[in-house]
Amino acid sequence: MKIFVDMDEVIADTYGAHIDIYNQEFNGNLTTETCMGNEVWKMVPTAHQDSVRKHATRRGFFRNLRPIENSIEVLSKLNDVHELYIASAAMQFPNSLEEKSDWLNEHFPFIPWQHIILCGHKHILRGDVLIDDRSYNLEHFNGRGLQFTSPHNIRTTGFERVNNWLEVAEKLL
Amino acid sequence: MKIFVDMDEVIADTYGAHIDIYNQEFNGNLTTETCMGNEVWKMVPTAHQDSVRKHATRRGFFRNLRPIENSIEVLSKLNDVHELYIASAAMQFPNSLEEKSDWLNEHFPFIPWQHIILCGHKHILRGDVLIDDRSYNLEHFNGRGLQFTSPHNIRTTGFERVNNWLEVAEKLL
Repeated sequence: MKIFVDMDEVIADTYGAHIDIYNQEFNGNLTTETCMGNEVWKMVPTAHQDSVRKHATRRGFFRNLRPIENSIEVLSKLNDVHELYIASAAMQFPNSLEEKSDWLNEHFPFIPWQHIILCGHKHILRGDVLIDDRSYNLEHFNGRGLQFTSPHNIRTTGFERVNNWLEVAEKLL
Repeated sequence: MKIFVDMDEVIADTYGAHIDIYNQEFNGNLTTETCMGNEVWKMVPTAHQDSVRKHATRRGFFRNLRPIENSIEVLSKLNDVHELYIASAAMQFPNSLEEKSDWLNEHFPFIPWQHIILCGHKHILRGDVLIDDRSYNLEHFNGRGLQFTSPHNIRTTGFERVNNWLEVAEKLL
């Protein structure tokens, strides 16, 4: 089975990084819990929103993300029994490209370069499963879409949902 | 129609750059004509082959390539009537990723980031046409493959061939 796995919010904790940076720079008190159901940039005062939306253009932002809980262990097992690919809509941020490659080599060294895809639209992917947090990626994928729970998508409906990597393991291992 | 276009040897003159760098550094006299039918690194003395094979890991190598003749004009027209994507097996060289993005933005500004794919294996692509110089990419593509002529592949058979961008225009416009 050919499985595509998104990066941000699925194996890399982008949401948590936005919160950490914001709290540090604006002496804020955002938490994942208080942001539930929203994009993180919408949870700060209007005057700070532009700053939060530009986090992703900073050098180092994508290189220093924390892996999502259990993602390394489960992906390693999935990789043993399936044809596993990473597929990230990274082209929006050219500064992220090499950082994402380096980050994957550090945390997921069992995934070879031939199995990494940095792209834009994901409807160009041909395979069986896409694990992604964004509805607009899942909508146009021609296989089984699994929506990975992230603070911003907890109220989204219409897709088969996985709340964490242990649930993915139950479904696909 | 969804069309994928490779970068190196198809819209970016990697082969010519290898020759230029080699001739400059080793006072060589390689030409495209004398290399016909071969990989460029095989055309230099054994002691120099490692140097040539490492050109692609140098900072700046992919940023300064010449566009292949007529590629800009024909891609611009293809982009008007088809769904056009760039698909480059760039993940092998992490240093190339941002350079390729910048190069495309300079020479092919009409291609949005959503239509750029930096990947490894190309059999993960879902679409109608793949224009590529490498047989191993065309072999596993699930649509119409067009082999774009490059000095290294002139003796390859088994694929529909296009010798230049004017021939692509005749077939696809």
